[in-house]
Amino acid sequence: MSTAILLVSCPDQKGITARITDFIFKNNGNIEHADQHIDSQSNTFFMRVEWSLADFAIVKEKISQEFTSLAEEFNIGWNLYFSSDIPRMAVFASGQTHCLYDLLLKQKQGLLKCRIPLIVSNHSEVSEVAKSFGIKFFHFPKTAKNKKVAERKEIELLKKENIELIVLARYTQILTNQFVKEFPNRIINIHHSFLPAFIGSKPYQRAYSRGVKIIGATSHYVTDELDAGPIIEQDIVRVNHRCCLEDLKREGRELERIVLNRAIRWHLERKILIYNNKTVVFD
Amino acid sequence: MSTAILLVSCPDQKGITARITDFIFKNNGNIEHADQHIDSQSNTFFMRVEWSLADFAIVKEKISQEFTSLAEEFNIGWNLYFSSDIPRMAVFASGQTHCLYDLLLKQKQGLLKCRIPLIVSNHSEVSEVAKSFGIKFFHFPKTAKNKKVAERKEIELLKKENIELIVLARYTQILTNQFVKEFPNRIINIHHSFLPAFIGSKPYQRAYSRGVKIIGATSHYVTDELDAGPIIEQDIVRVNHRCCLEDLKREGRELERIVLNRAIRWHLERKILIYNNKTVVFD
Amino acid sequence: MSTAILLVSCPDQKGITARITDFIFKNNGNIEHADQHIDSQSNTFFMRVEWSLADFAIVKEKISQEFTSLAEEFNIGWNLYFSSDIPRMAVFASGQTHCLYDLLLKQKQGLLKCRIPLIVSNHSEVSEVAKSFGIKFFHFPKTAKNKKVAERKEIELLKKENIELIVLARYTQILTNQFVKEFPNRIINIHHSFLPAFIGSKPYQRAYSRGVKIIGATSHYVTDELDAGPIIEQDIVRVNHRCCLEDLKREGRELERIVLNRAIRWHLERKILIYNNKTVVFD
Amino acid sequence: MSTAILLVSCPDQKGITARITDFIFKNNGNIEHADQHIDSQSNTFFMRVEWSLADFAIVKEKISQEFTSLAEEFNIGWNLYFSSDIPRMAVFASGQTHCLYDLLLKQKQGLLKCRIPLIVSNHSEVSEVAKSFGIKFFHFPKTAKNKKVAERKEIELLKKENIELIVLARYTQILTNQFVKEFPNRIINIHHSFLPAFIGSKPYQRAYSRGVKIIGATSHYVTDELDAGPIIEQDIVRVNHRCCLEDLKREGRELERIVLNRAIRWHLERKILIYNNKTVVFD
Repeated sequence: MSTAILLVSCPDQKGITARITDFIFKNNGNIEHADQHIDSQSNTFFMRVEWSLADFAIVKEKISQEFTSLAEEFNIGWNLYFSSDIPRMAVFASGQTHCLYDLLLKQKQGLLKCRIPLIVSNHSEVSEVAKSFGIKFFHFPKTAKNKKVAERKEIELLKKENIELIVLARYTQILTNQFVKEFPNRIINIHHSFLPAFIGSKPYQRAYSRGVKIIGATSHYVTDELDAGPIIEQDIVRVNHRCCLEDLKREGRELERIVLNRAIRWHLERKILIYNNKTVVFD
Repeated sequence: MSTAILLVSCPDQKGITARITDFIFKNNGNIEHADQHIDSQSNTFFMRVEWSLADFAIVKEKISQEFTSLAEEFNIGWNLYFSSDIPRMAVFASGQTHCLYDLLLKQKQGLLKCRIPLIVSNHSEVSEVAKSFGIKFFHFPKTAKNKKVAERKEIELLKKENIELIVLARYTQILTNQFVKEFPNRIINIHHSFLPAFIGSKPYQRAYSRGVKIIGATSHYVTDELDAGPIIEQDIVRVNHRCCLEDLKREGRELERIVLNRAIRWHLERKILIYNNKTVVFD
Repeated sequence: MSTAILLVSCPDQKGITARITDFIFKNNGNIEHADQHIDSQSNTFFMRVEWSLADFAIVKEKISQEFTSLAEEFNIGWNLYFSSDIPRMAVFASGQTHCLYDLLLKQKQGLLKCRIPLIVSNHSEVSEVAKSFGIKFFHFPKTAKNKKVAERKEIELLKKENIELIVLARYTQILTNQFVKEFPNRIINIHHSFLPAFIGSKPYQRAYSRGVKIIGATSHYVTDELDAGPIIEQDIVRVNHRCCLEDLKREGRELERIVLNRAIRWHLERKILIYNNKTVVFD
Repeated sequence: MSTAILLVSCPDQKGITARITDFIFKNNGNIEHADQHIDSQSNTFFMRVEWSLADFAIVKEKISQEFTSLAEEFNIGWNLYFSSDIPRMAVFASGQTHCLYDLLLKQKQGLLKCRIPLIVSNHSEVSEVAKSFGIKFFHFPKTAKNKKVAERKEIELLKKENIELIVLARYTQILTNQFVKEFPNRIINIHHSFLPAFIGSKPYQRAYSRGVKIIGATSHYVTDELDAGPIIEQDIVRVNHRCCLEDLKREGRELERIVLNRAIRWHLERKILIYNNKTVVFD
């Protein structure tokens, strides 16, 4: 059954919930999920409301238009999605393919509501994985010199393929600001530490050297500052002095794929709102 | 600033959110928190909405009355609370006083919004703790023989003192169904296992014997079936073969007080709805 | 570099550590790992010691013989393993193949030190998975009637293939005592609850109905009592009222494979000792 | 029953375990606990061995002397403790007293094997807490100007009182290097973040601003670099967008006291070895 999903953020004000839900009610929509949150520090109102289109009085194509006057009255920033529109997702991976593999498997099993038309890598071996899942593969090796050219080709490809979400599944290349700007709030990365600890490269090695008793993984939207974008999800696992670096990596790999998976699922289900470099996750 | 808190449950139906929030909006209430949940299995709608009484058009005493017609129309089960009404809570404890102590300390520090007019125990030594916090103490020793009489006195006392919530803080006596019936959904117990494992007595010893790798604690509302009431909160801690029974007890004590504390706080903040022997916790 | 691993359990007594480590030292062995544990309740001594065979004075084949007199003197129950002997493991699976898939992938990546010569299932579709990994597949459909005959064939097959460890990777058939007796402490099962809660069938459904706030998974050795064998590992994940049964299953699947994986890895690395229906895990 | 506890670290070498345990065995000691660890990166051997003094052939006072030749032969760094020697611990606290309170309560209940002869604070109100537990209180207000003088008095006091362990229980003053040097590996701090994230002041506020999904606490030995000493223990709790800063602080307080408590208990039980700015914790 097809649903509409409305994500809303605006200054908090009297009657906002009543007016939005009334818009749905008056048009004979049946709300299936609704969540809201008020950030009292910034006085911001957030809402996610999902309703059945079964008996809805407004046709899908006209909902945006009909909602506009209310949105303007309350100064609402909003996005409208439909569960029947399946997002197209591209995965970028490098030498470590456990996250990539996990995503492909989950998508195949119907656990991620998206299409994955293409895989991009700076490592040619990744083509094997892509092939075994019947997905197009693009090899963009990157050097300091050719990076901008390579990225321009990637951007072109992603736009041509109508990609909505880009997932960096342990992709080792840092994207330039030019690239990031093309896809605001549409690039999700998995970083293998509990950010903001161990920003940048080799976080397991640095965690090992520091002698931490927990290691973590963080999924976040990519912004122009390295590993500093809005955090979507984090999780951790305990380690101890008996763990060598390889143990940290092995345990971490399990974490990474779980944490990345949750973030992607929430994004695809339109459960994330971003503000103030933070996320509201209506899980 | 005083707020009203409305807890609602009813069959899910179109317009329910719109109508409830509109009731608040029309009367010039400013919603501070709103949460809702639809249990799709039973088609039940749950809502918690909290709004400021600052400019509210209806005086506190008349809100219930004004809400009645809407409630009847939608067949709503509901409770209305005011943040300015501080609940009165009684604590029952036995020989182990770590949970009792923690509650008293937190209440004193303003971390639990309640009054604690009295402490009840089957152990006379607990009077020391009560005394050090300046709280009335009642000693009701219990035997199979005198239990009913003792309970009758306890009920009388609790009613006289206008007690809303009874907390069993590692209280070792099982309450009779007669007692429980007097305080439906108003008795919270802490059980020192991850229920439904290890129902009944000596859960740590049984966990130790079974060789579990995690131990837990569960706070729940008391019903007439032992340790089978609606679960409010659970948490766990890892153990291993090096842990002796005393280690389990020590680690467990920390869990117990945390898990009990969360449950009580949520109850006092009117964040819990009960249905189907389960809880909805709008934390 | 090849190592020897000695697992020891015996009544605790003076000098036991000294004598065992001296046996290794005198024969010019370099200890790489040593762990010991004394269960003070039963006064039992446990030890795992792993040493390099590089300069060891006794040839591999004679170590057992040379150790015998010491073992007899201290009444030691013991097992000797060599890291160069790669255990042969069979996986039993049914309709849900996420655990099977994960094991095969990890084995392929070198993260599980074993061979997997065969997969057994009561579901014929599982042959697809086996095929894609190039592993022999055996289909043994089971009914109440043919169970004993089917199991006899399975036992024959497992013995012919020299299988040391049998993994029940969400295998839905209960093994008879006859089967279990053939492989004492050599069958590992994953149960999708935090045992001893929800023993038997449909644990997620029962967890959902009970309204628990955490779900778990447990890996354990199979004994003749259902879900009551020595627990090797457990882990949990938090759930809440927003989780439907499908959410529990999805989150649980991640847990299951992690918890099963750890158990198998520890078994293969000879890190588990069993006593009193419990495990000592020298992780 | 009195025990001896020997902590050992040295370059790994053949026979080290055998020789140490043989030293105990020959002198008729019964080992109650033994743990060892080899850090393969630095080739360092660590051991903790605890044995009963009941029938031990060497009198307590002479054990060190007798062990010396073995220690020299293997180039062992070592410490010898006796369970009958109860360590003397000083607690430093500031305005937030939940950790202090917890330590005092646990010590009183016999859960921390130490004496607490004195409490130091830069806040005079803390004297109330000290008084209620019958412990001497010293008020050292600190300014940039008087800090060195104040610290000199504190050092004098601590030495006079024969203090072995100093606990910074949410003590807000940074100790100078001069102070730290006087008590190497003998000052334990609780920092309210999962280090190395949020080093320094206001970690909860910074965690809140960064939008993390987990908060943590870290207990560590104090060195001359701020919040960079050897980590003893860490733990975390999940938070989400609904948590305001006060929620983080409230949840964090529970963590802090648990994490600090574990660290102190392990230190008092002589379970911690320090190397390379890390800890080996034989828990």
